[in-house]
Order: sequence, then C-alpha cells, then structure tokens
Amino acid sequence: MSKGLLIVVSGPSGAGKGTVCSALLAKQADIQLSISATTREPRKIEKPGVNYHYFTKEEFRSQIDQDGFLEYAEVYGNYYGTPKKFVLDALKAGNDVLLEIDIQGALKVKEAYPDGVFIFILPPTLEELQKRITSRGTETEESLKKRLGAAVEEIEQAFKYEYCIVNDQVDEAVEELEAILKAERCLIKRNHEKIHNFREEEFYVEA
Amino acid sequence: MSKGLLIVVSGPSGAGKGTVCSALLAKQADIQLSISATTREPRKIEKPGVNYHYFTKEEFRSQIDQDGFLEYAEVYGNYYGTPKKFVLDALKAGNDVLLEIDIQGALKVKEAYPDGVFIFILPPTLEELQKRITSRGTETEESLKKRLGAAVEEIEQAFKYEYCIVNDQVDEAVEELEAILKAERCLIKRNHEKIHNFREEEFYVEA
Repeated sequence: MSKGLLIVVSGPSGAGKGTVCSALLAKQADIQLSISATTREPRKIEKPGVNYHYFTKEEFRSQIDQDGFLEYAEVYGNYYGTPKKFVLDALKAGNDVLLEIDIQGALKVKEAYPDGVFIFILPPTLEELQKRITSRGTETEESLKKRLGAAVEEIEQAFKYEYCIVNDQVDEAVEELEAILKAERCLIKRNHEKIHNFREEEFYVEA
Repeated sequence: MSKGLLIVVSGPSGAGKGTVCSALLAKQADIQLSISATTREPRKIEKPGVNYHYFTKEEFRSQIDQDGFLEYAEVYGNYYGTPKKFVLDALKAGNDVLLEIDIQGALKVKEAYPDGVFIFILPPTLEELQKRITSRGTETEESLKKRLGAAVEEIEQAFKYEYCIVNDQVDEAVEELEAILKAERCLIKRNHEKIHNFREEEFYVEA
C-alpha cells in the first residue's frame, strides 16, 4: 500500500485556514484530521478528542520524554503539541492526514518530516485581512495594528513553504488545495515503485 | 502580468500522450500548443502550421545558427525542432504553452528551461501497452518485442521528470494534468512577487 500524504496547512490569523480545512474535510471524508494535544483547560464548548486531546502537564512531559510529539511548544505556560503516533500510523496505513497548525509548529514538522505537503494560506490583501479581523468586533485600534504587523511578519514565513493559496473565495481555495494533493500524488518521487515495476513486469509476445 | 507555464508532456509510444494532450486542449482553450518544425516532407493528410512547420534544410540550419530552437534533433536524415520564439513570446505574455515531444527533446528543453513542468505519461502496464500497440495491427512479433523493450528503456527516463500520470482512463489522466497545472501555479517559487507585495502594501487603522 502506498503511504498517505501529510498535509500541513498554516497561515496568519484571519486568513481563514480553519474554514478552508473544514471545507476540505467535508468534501474528502477519507482525509484524517490530526487533533492537537494541550495542557490548557477545555473551554465550555470544547470536546475532548474533537477540539483537543487534554493532557495534564505530567502526561504531556512524559510524552515529550518518550518522543511522542511531531512538534510541541510552550505558550503562556501551557503546552501544545501534535501527537506523533496517530499521524505516523495513519500515513503508514495509506491514509492522508491533515495538520492545521501554526507556522512555528509547521516548520518544526517540516524538519522532522520533509516529505509532507506544506501549504500557506494567504489573505487576498492586508486590507481584506483587516476587515476580517475587525468584523469579529473585539479589537482595539492598538491591538489591530499589532495583529496586522504580526501578520506581515508571518507572511514572510511563506517562503519556507512549498505552496501558497490565496483565500479569496473559500470554494476556489479548496479546489486549489485538492489540486495540490492530486498533483503531489503524481510526483515522480512518490511513484518510484510504480515506475520500477515496469522493469520487473515480464512481457512476452504471442505470435 | 505573471509568466505562463511551459508544460512539457512526453512518454513512450503507445502511452497515449497525444490523446491526453488533445483532450487537455479541448478543455482549456487558452493553453497554446507549440508546433514543431521539421524538414521531412508533409504527408498527404498533414497541414503546414497544424501538424508541423515545414522547413527546407537550409532554413532549418539557418535557424539553428540563429539559436532559433529550444531543442532540435536529426533523425534518419531529417531535422525536427521546437521553435524558440513562439514559446518564449507566449510565456512572456502570460500564456501557458504545451509541448508534446519525445523524451530526448524534453530533456534538452529541461536543461534550457528548468522552470517548465515536466510530465511523463505512463501506460497502466506493459501488457496494456502491448494491447494498444497490437490493436493498430501493423506490428510483427519481432517489431513488437523491440517496441516493448524500447518502452521499458524509455520509462526509466521518467525519473528525470517531475510528475507521472498513468493513462488508464483518458478523462482521469486529463484531470490529473489539470490538477498539476493548478498546483504549479500555487508553488511559492511562482508567487514571490505576490508574497513580497504584502510588505509593500500600506496599511493604516481607522479608529
């Protein structure tokens, strides 16, 4: 069985990577979503195993010691990470796995698993990003400026990815994402066995 | 305007690259087909500028001297080549250009223009290739053996390409080809300007 694709999607906050990923999963039910682990408290609307796997700090540190994460980070005193076993088992079984993670995490995954497909979601323009952020209605002028400045910094990281998708219309963005996956499956580097098999195939000619 | 894609499609005789390319052009009328030049005599059903551009040997050699070909070769005393100006002008104008050429020609184009998209069309199996060849009904046992042997050798060249497409069902093969083109347009290396523009875009926050 051929190995599945590790699909890593990131982008600046407000670019809409969550929407694009949800729409992809709705269309392609065979893609498995990786659920992150965290030590922070579950929010009221969150469900264990759906939004996150909730670990105690002891559990999380023990998993770190056992090399149990593809990547992890500590943010404001809590841990966040991508459990390794789920991802590698699914890939080995030939399933595609989707990681929707932040840029720092994605770049760590790229070091550990360069064979993944690294996709950066861009907003159409900064102006549009600003509109999307302000439509949520909770930003002060100061925090908005800070977020836009951070977004510009983050977008520079796109050069470390392989693909970018401009999320103007979600359905078009999902079509591009699907095209990327289809094209990746056609890469020569992912089809060595198939090509070598022609040499192995016995052929004989009947008169 | 962004540069167009140079799409280079090859594969062993009988894999059906001509059928796949025709079906792509029928679906995407904006892709421009490069017409090869040759010094061989036109066949009765062929039309100048459709099947080939027909050159005298003097004209062809003069074009070689003026660096007028992306690639050319001499086969059984006749020249065949890909006129350079048509291809480069179309790409510069932002149009995609399709080259359906043999493997030797494709690999020469790759040296001259590594930014192209190099796609190898495979038959599903050698057995199927044999069926396709024999259905044309003109092969002796000896020539069939020779052609299958040559196909096996040619398929090894696929490792020098970037993508392969198994032409089992033509419509699926064309979908894969279209996905490859869509994905290529999302490559970071083809979108440097778009990403840099975010840094240039002025943003200001209204209270």
